[in-house]
Amino acid sequence: MIRFVLDTSIFVNPEIRNKFGENPTEAMKKFLEYVERLFGRVEFYMPPGIYKEVTHFVELEEVSPDIELYIIKKPPNVHDIKIPAFVVYELIEDIRRRIDKGLRVAEKAVRESVIYTQNVDAIIQKLRRNYRKALREGIVDSKEDFELILLAKELDATIVSADVGILTWAQKMGIKWTDAARFKEVLDELVEKMGK
Amino acid sequence: MIRFVLDTSIFVNPEIRNKFGENPTEAMKKFLEYVERLFGRVEFYMPPGIYKEVTHFVELEEVSPDIELYIIKKPPNVHDIKIPAFVVYELIEDIRRRIDKGLRVAEKAVRESVIYTQNVDAIIQKLRRNYRKALREGIVDSKEDFELILLAKELDATIVSADVGILTWAQKMGIKWTDAARFKEVLDELVEKMGK
Repeated sequence: MIRFVLDTSIFVNPEIRNKFGENPTEAMKKFLEYVERLFGRVEFYMPPGIYKEVTHFVELEEVSPDIELYIIKKPPNVHDIKIPAFVVYELIEDIRRRIDKGLRVAEKAVRESVIYTQNVDAIIQKLRRNYRKALREGIVDSKEDFELILLAKELDATIVSADVGILTWAQKMGIKWTDAARFKEVLDELVEKMGK
Repeated sequence: MIRFVLDTSIFVNPEIRNKFGENPTEAMKKFLEYVERLFGRVEFYMPPGIYKEVTHFVELEEVSPDIELYIIKKPPNVHDIKIPAFVVYELIEDIRRRIDKGLRVAEKAVRESVIYTQNVDAIIQKLRRNYRKALREGIVDSKEDFELILLAKELDATIVSADVGILTWAQKMGIKWTDAARFKEVLDELVEKMGK
């Protein structure tokens, strides 16, 4: 049995979603058509946090009950799975560097706001952007993302994501992955080879 | 064999160190007297990062070669040790909350600096304090701290620390611990029971 664990980006990120449909609901409908043809041969999973995110974007009544039937919702078993210590070690080092950088970003914003007192809102906007970039870009910083990684590990499944932080961790932890941007082509191929 | 893994706080934190000596070097000398009397019955370990920190505070020539003989320097084996996923899960959640809080601290500092433009240095000082508190207090945020935890796990040893972040993780990971503030009394008792 081939197994995939799906990230939100497939249905939400416009560049990736476009291959499936022009809005999240259309993209989900198209995706579910593939899944139907692969039913019994390929399994598609989502952890609960990711599923919840996706349902914020997709009109559920338009894709029920197929979405319930064809996307398997399962949390990872966080009490049995173990993470190699060096992965956590590197995470802690990375976070520490980011925390230091975040403080420099904040200090710079304070000094700018003393000079340009009229532009405080613009300075705060820039602070938010730079702070987010320093602390959150390219890192697994949410339990939703982490659940995705753990579930793929538990199931020995392939992660489908476009998120740099998720893909970096997947590689460190020896997890198979497919870039979400190429997922449509992968599904076309699978349907051709083994679809009904 | 009884084994302890030692944090820097025993020799550096003034309140704790005072029980052993009035400066780090005197405290280390006194500590090494205990270790000498327990040699062969009790082992004392430090991971390399912690040892390096301690040697910044202790006059090495005054405690050599005893410090080399009696404190066993060993890095944890980060490639074999595994961390339960739920511990990392909680770490990621905790860090995420702290990152959000850090941004609020930064935004507040920017808004203050627009009003009190003369006090920018004081505002930056306060920002550093509050940011540090939001992002670093009570969390394992350095590889030195993490090495301490991993080494104790690997050796099934008791962690001796006064750091809240370290003690919290030690408890989550099922590691034995002794509060550094009571370590002198523990050593007194050990020497009485089994010392030479």
